Amino acid sequence: MYRSHSCGELRASHINTEVILSGWVQKSRDKGFMIWVDLRDRYGITQLIFDEERTPKDMMEKAKSLGREFVIQVTGTVIERESKNDKMPTGEIEVLVSKLEILNAAKLPPFTIEDQTDGGEDIRMKYRYLDIRRNPVKENLIFRHKVTMEVRKFLSNQGFIEVETPYLIKSTPEGARDFVVPSRMNKGQFYALPQSPQTFKQLLMVGGMDKYFQIVKCFRDEDLRADRQPEFTQIDCEMAFVEQEDILNVFEAMTRHLLKEIHGINIEKFPRMLYDDAMRLYGNDKPDIRFGMQFGELNEVTKHKDFPVFNNAELVVGIAVPGGNVYTRKEIDALIDWVKRPQIGALGMVYCRVNEDGTFKSSVDKFYDETDLSKWAEITGAKAGDLICVLSGETNKVRAQLSALRMELATRLGLRKSNEFAPLWVVDFPLLELDEETGHYHAMHHPFTSPKPGQLEMLDTNPGAVKANAYDLVLNGNEIGGGSIRIHDKKTQATMLRHLGFSDENAKAQFGFLMDAFEYGAPPHGGLAFGLDRLVAILGGQETIRDFIAFPKNNSGRDVMIDAPAFIDEEQLKELNIKLDIQE
Amino acid sequence: MYRSHSCGELRASHINTEVILSGWVQKSRDKGFMIWVDLRDRYGITQLIFDEERTPKDMMEKAKSLGREFVIQVTGTVIERESKNDKMPTGEIEVLVSKLEILNAAKLPPFTIEDQTDGGEDIRMKYRYLDIRRNPVKENLIFRHKVTMEVRKFLSNQGFIEVETPYLIKSTPEGARDFVVPSRMNKGQFYALPQSPQTFKQLLMVGGMDKYFQIVKCFRDEDLRADRQPEFTQIDCEMAFVEQEDILNVFEAMTRHLLKEIHGINIEKFPRMLYDDAMRLYGNDKPDIRFGMQFGELNEVTKHKDFPVFNNAELVVGIAVPGGNVYTRKEIDALIDWVKRPQIGALGMVYCRVNEDGTFKSSVDKFYDETDLSKWAEITGAKAGDLICVLSGETNKVRAQLSALRMELATRLGLRKSNEFAPLWVVDFPLLELDEETGHYHAMHHPFTSPKPGQLEMLDTNPGAVKANAYDLVLNGNEIGGGSIRIHDKKTQATMLRHLGFSDENAKAQFGFLMDAFEYGAPPHGGLAFGLDRLVAILGGQETIRDFIAFPKNNSGRDVMIDAPAFIDEEQLKELNIKLDIQE
Repeated sequence: MYRSHSCGELRASHINTEVILSGWVQKSRDKGFMIWVDLRDRYGITQLIFDEERTPKDMMEKAKSLGREFVIQVTGTVIERESKNDKMPTGEIEVLVSKLEILNAAKLPPFTIEDQTDGGEDIRMKYRYLDIRRNPVKENLIFRHKVTMEVRKFLSNQGFIEVETPYLIKSTPEGARDFVVPSRMNKGQFYALPQSPQTFKQLLMVGGMDKYFQIVKCFRDEDLRADRQPEFTQIDCEMAFVEQEDILNVFEAMTRHLLKEIHGINIEKFPRMLYDDAMRLYGNDKPDIRFGMQFGELNEVTKHKDFPVFNNAELVVGIAVPGGNVYTRKEIDALIDWVKRPQIGALGMVYCRVNEDGTFKSSVDKFYDETDLSKWAEITGAKAGDLICVLSGETNKVRAQLSALRMELATRLGLRKSNEFAPLWVVDFPLLELDEETGHYHAMHHPFTSPKPGQLEMLDTNPGAVKANAYDLVLNGNEIGGGSIRIHDKKTQATMLRHLGFSDENAKAQFGFLMDAFEYGAPPHGGLAFGLDRLVAILGGQETIRDFIAFPKNNSGRDVMIDAPAFIDEEQLKELNIKLDIQE
Repeated sequence: MYRSHSCGELRASHINTEVILSGWVQKSRDKGFMIWVDLRDRYGITQLIFDEERTPKDMMEKAKSLGREFVIQVTGTVIERESKNDKMPTGEIEVLVSKLEILNAAKLPPFTIEDQTDGGEDIRMKYRYLDIRRNPVKENLIFRHKVTMEVRKFLSNQGFIEVETPYLIKSTPEGARDFVVPSRMNKGQFYALPQSPQTFKQLLMVGGMDKYFQIVKCFRDEDLRADRQPEFTQIDCEMAFVEQEDILNVFEAMTRHLLKEIHGINIEKFPRMLYDDAMRLYGNDKPDIRFGMQFGELNEVTKHKDFPVFNNAELVVGIAVPGGNVYTRKEIDALIDWVKRPQIGALGMVYCRVNEDGTFKSSVDKFYDETDLSKWAEITGAKAGDLICVLSGETNKVRAQLSALRMELATRLGLRKSNEFAPLWVVDFPLLELDEETGHYHAMHHPFTSPKPGQLEMLDTNPGAVKANAYDLVLNGNEIGGGSIRIHDKKTQATMLRHLGFSDENAKAQFGFLMDAFEYGAPPHGGLAFGLDRLVAILGGQETIRDFIAFPKNNSGRDVMIDAPAFIDEEQLKELNIKLDIQE
């Protein structure tokens, strides 16, 4: 037996008990005649004590030899600690060691195993198994486990069945790029790894499973932006015989349950917002509503005042920065530089101070008088002491720019509190999205999303205006889930695919099995998928998903710990009926 | 709202309630003036009634038009049923329909959606979404969900943390063939899909996670024998600071919990058997101990009696078939033909009848007298009325042959009862296994398994005799789980890999990250993995894992429903820096 207790469990009530503990040496203090060792395991830290008077000489020598991260086993007696440490759950006691065994020595770790480490991202990823020993990472992984257990319990209690769908499926040209897997047994053919189990969950509805869920890995071979992973985890859900309202209610209840179980927070009813309103008021389809700073559109009150920039702009829009009037001219210039960075791309920024006495001072006083500016304040909701920031230009671009500024300022102002949770449903998404490069429309959600009743016909006349039965769940400015009511009849699905540019032949080759299935009695159905990595990060009050993934990949899609991907044998390639053909 | 109740929920207490139901038309009986429709969903079947007197004429017409598997929604009143059906939970009532809506018509399904279907395996797999509507398949999937929920709850309550390990990892030449995934971003390099998360779970132990589990897909590109799948699911577990005994106790408790929760069966203590004994007594490392028929080795009592077949045999071994003396000569001849089939490969079979009066009649009376044969009976445990079947030859071969015969006879005799559960630990597996083709030893479990204490040295002198800290959990003659105590120091791991034929260079390239990790304070650790597909099938009283997988692949690794794998675009291949190179 390696241990009778964990390192987090001994209390004053255990005094005089003989115990066996195993763990890692967190650190030791050697006073010559006395040695204290902090012994660590997943459950906590217990102080061990060796002293000249009570410890045999050879054991003192052995204790002196212990380095950081050595793995040891000790037998000893729990005794009262002289100087108690009320910051540690085990702080009332220590263990006087009578037997010490070194189970495994350890080289000096390449970074310190402490909550605040001296290791950079790269070295921590290379030695991720050491990084996981650190409390923040360990606690994140335990937190992730707790969230998934709660999700499973909740959904299972609601009658959802977790069904495993296959990982070796078929490549589809729609959406992101697939990872593919050459089939040895089917020469020249490839499986694809699922971008999501979308079609399978729909087939489970056709199969009468009624309520399905799965916590499942999904794969996308995309050029990795920061904080994207080639493999990621979804809480994937689908229900039959439901309308949008039914789905929203179930998953609102699930999210409410998580917030309650994990943070003790009760949120009665999640607000809902139309996609169009989200774009108008926040420039963004996933607004962070923990704070205000809503957009005020200023076209009406800025036009025809001889300021050509605003006169020529499709949209003039501003926000009020609470207390922003304290910014110096230099600080405001820095802000202007910030919005002009290529990542944001604004051409400039107009600002207007709202002084404490209610007067205004703007960067465009030449064109606008107090009356004009008071209207700006009214529309943006600016109060005395605030700063109004105004951007202008093409609607989509300027909204994205002002949204980025709003988030940046809120972060600087401490308005994005990590212990505050503001969920929001965004509903009535457009069905299609115009790809500006190709001029083609593609499905905003995916090709299986149903248009709003009666809008199918508009696909021919005004495709961009067709709204979908599609919804996102937003939490603190992050999309944590999204879904839709699906098309469940072959004809509509065929029409839809035609509008997305599929030839009938391609539609049949790619999705024939699904459309065939629709002919054998498909129920109305819909669903939703949560991005688990992000959900867990946001619930954990953080934003970096990598910190909640045990073994993440870097921005080049590499696992630097195991050094993957890697070259494989010629023999292996031959068996798979492929050869390398490196493109320059 | 599509429904107020499910189709399995209405009882006499609901009489006079107005309800809304949705589901599939299971069948309808049309008596002209009256139409009954069985409406089905996941939860059950409810009888709907339409009749001339109470149903408007156009609705009668619509009801007449309903075909099997149409999806409909009805509003109606729950009424008492005239002829009650106590075989159905809803058999006391029916619903008099006041509103009927056809949500989706259905083509006639290619096989009947009944518990006993007329569809063969191939057609059912092509239309798996229809197959899933059938109770046996649906119930299997729900059963699988229940088992996994119980496993997760049990392990979570025991302090295990479910950690997701990556799917895009690195190919290793050891073990079965990997499925690989070309990396677009790392030209010419490949990921591999995990055959198991083995090294990652060990790294989690090095990382101090202490108790890990994961229900996870694994992948093996093997030539598919019957009832093997290229992707399969494991309950993967690992613990730190444990000895074999600790692991056996935890997972015995888990299995006991499952048997109790699922079948209400209490099994106090699982028996344990040495690998060597299992091979000697059952010819098999996964003996079915629901019944006896243990092997009796007869070399001592058959040699030197002028029967050259036995005299020259490495092993002469028999089993007593309970009540087998009733077999006619023809039946016994058929049995001899059975063991001589190429799949079994015996050269012949000697038999000996034990008559009711205690006398013997054997096929080798020329060589053996009553005294000799009475010893055979004693050693095999044969009683009056039994039949002793004896095979002889090379030890390994003859054991496998007699084991196959034992299982076949037990099946014919009805001794393998599907509602009886006989778990068994098989322990002390050999560390290495001789590959007879190459003459090389390879790891019987995997290269990370630790040899029994003090036996490492024997690797040089008598490698085949080295026993491992490895164990299997057997249930009803099936291996449902297996694991080992792992090597946790670099030196032993390096020695082990050398003995498995890895050059130091290869060992470093493949497993360097693991051996490096062992130098930074690796705790003693070990674990176990259950094959979930098989566990669920066996717990469900069945043996075919395919029946417990939602979307299985066929023996060529194809998903015939979605028609995968498939050819992919030239463009896609180019992006992945590969081209086809089909070997003839």
